Amino acid sequence: MAQYPTKVYLNGEIIDAENAKISVFDRGFLFGDGVYEVMTQTGGDFFYQQAHFKRLTESLAKTRIDFDVDTLIVKIEQLLQAADLLHQDCLLYIQITRGIAPRKHDFPAEALPSLMMYALPRVFPDINENHLSVITMPDHRWSRCDIKMTSLLGNVMANDYAIKQGVYEALLVRDGNITEASHSNVFFVKDEVVYTHPANEYILNGITRQITIKLCHDLGIKIKEEEVPATEVTSMDEVFLTGTTTRIASVKYIDQQEFYPGQKIGSITRRLQQGFRDLREQHRQKSTIPVANSSVV
Amino acid sequence: MAQYPTKVYLNGEIIDAENAKISVFDRGFLFGDGVYEVMTQTGGDFFYQQAHFKRLTESLAKTRIDFDVDTLIVKIEQLLQAADLLHQDCLLYIQITRGIAPRKHDFPAEALPSLMMYALPRVFPDINENHLSVITMPDHRWSRCDIKMTSLLGNVMANDYAIKQGVYEALLVRDGNITEASHSNVFFVKDEVVYTHPANEYILNGITRQITIKLCHDLGIKIKEEEVPATEVTSMDEVFLTGTTTRIASVKYIDQQEFYPGQKIGSITRRLQQGFRDLREQHRQKSTIPVANSSVV
Repeated sequence: MAQYPTKVYLNGEIIDAENAKISVFDRGFLFGDGVYEVMTQTGGDFFYQQAHFKRLTESLAKTRIDFDVDTLIVKIEQLLQAADLLHQDCLLYIQITRGIAPRKHDFPAEALPSLMMYALPRVFPDINENHLSVITMPDHRWSRCDIKMTSLLGNVMANDYAIKQGVYEALLVRDGNITEASHSNVFFVKDEVVYTHPANEYILNGITRQITIKLCHDLGIKIKEEEVPATEVTSMDEVFLTGTTTRIASVKYIDQQEFYPGQKIGSITRRLQQGFRDLREQHRQKSTIPVANSSVV
Repeated sequence: MAQYPTKVYLNGEIIDAENAKISVFDRGFLFGDGVYEVMTQTGGDFFYQQAHFKRLTESLAKTRIDFDVDTLIVKIEQLLQAADLLHQDCLLYIQITRGIAPRKHDFPAEALPSLMMYALPRVFPDINENHLSVITMPDHRWSRCDIKMTSLLGNVMANDYAIKQGVYEALLVRDGNITEASHSNVFFVKDEVVYTHPANEYILNGITRQITIKLCHDLGIKIKEEEVPATEVTSMDEVFLTGTTTRIASVKYIDQQEFYPGQKIGSITRRLQQGFRDLREQHRQKSTIPVANSSVV
């Protein structure tokens, strides 16, 4: 399912993916010393681009990588043009590292940040109709999960463990509480109240997480940003994951427990999925891109 | 001080360092999904090579990267030959990643691990005569620090913080205890007993740490692998760091506290430094390399 893009933007050049190579002395390769974002385009524009740019700016500030996010706009357009994806439905990956320098732990004074981006054609339906199975496992990650960084071994090991168990995701448990999943956030519903972990240093504050919280407010659904103990998961009425490519996805099984029969997604999960679909539809309608362009997929 | 090597070994080729480039789709670059080792050569052979290889094998097993460490021997020799460092005093860096694949968190089935190595000419005196200053700060890293991996953002941020404060290292505090430093292990001496954090998942079990513990046993110095609360640091008699390039290094200052006057290193630290020097001397004497070669530096 995973595929390579045709083109890669790398430090000012647009290169065929198979020739896109970075120095082995890039700190992204030596130290996982970088940050990243993933955005999706629909209706000719990126969905919540400003929120993604804001978070990228925050990740750069927290890691003290000196890079001006505003310079991305023109570069993204160049990449999309070269990849024949201008205004097309696609996924955009952006990675910024601290740059190339002889290996030494502390930050090099002279290095310029490296920028790598690529786009893949992808149509994401507004509603994720899957009924996901997930497992719970210990959260081994560091205590700065609020930074969207490329030192992701903890995440990839957790995710791989889940995939090898035949499920979609791993819900991570730290100090007895569910924090988030290996590459998505998690929400619970109990007695018509929605719960999700507070946006502190133990989770990444996902853009779709933020959208979901706003949707709760807009739809009159009570939402609490509170820790959910792992021991209380079995008593929950509904569970769903959120993420840029996951969107809002219903969880049917956690470990062996079934949360609903057949395909009967919980009513609050469904209302939020529909609210999310409406936001995407609004996004497409207010897109500044001429319909003639955006409809060519 | 940091410098580039002349040659890099990369996936079967020996390349001038400035041309040593890896695919941006290498998981080392995208995910920090790799492991590494650093060894030093003295007297014509690598010091404690088997211990380093054993730890590398363990790191690979823990991350489930399928790579046969025994195949390194011939490749290291090719690299050293090309770099004019065969049997010369040098530092060798070895990095193995999970390989090149389209970006997706779980481990790719098809990817072959990537191997990158380089050597730098470096003469490390047997005794590190520096009097180090260090600071204490929170340990934000994950709970699998026993894996020597390249997802090192937590380490580099801690190290950079220390360097920017004008000191050599950061002693990391987790759950109230000193675990280790950002790229070295830490030992304390109190009432002629040596203390260091147990080799569990909160520290990397350094080769020089292991050598130091054995030296304690050999020299009749009492050693306890026990957690040292950060609040007890001020009451310690001596403090030292260990590491492959740090060797055994006396700590004179932690935060503002001075541990000894002038250059008067604590007696147990000094005995261990001398014991370490003797091991290096023995290593050189039993080296199989003709003296004519090993003396050309």
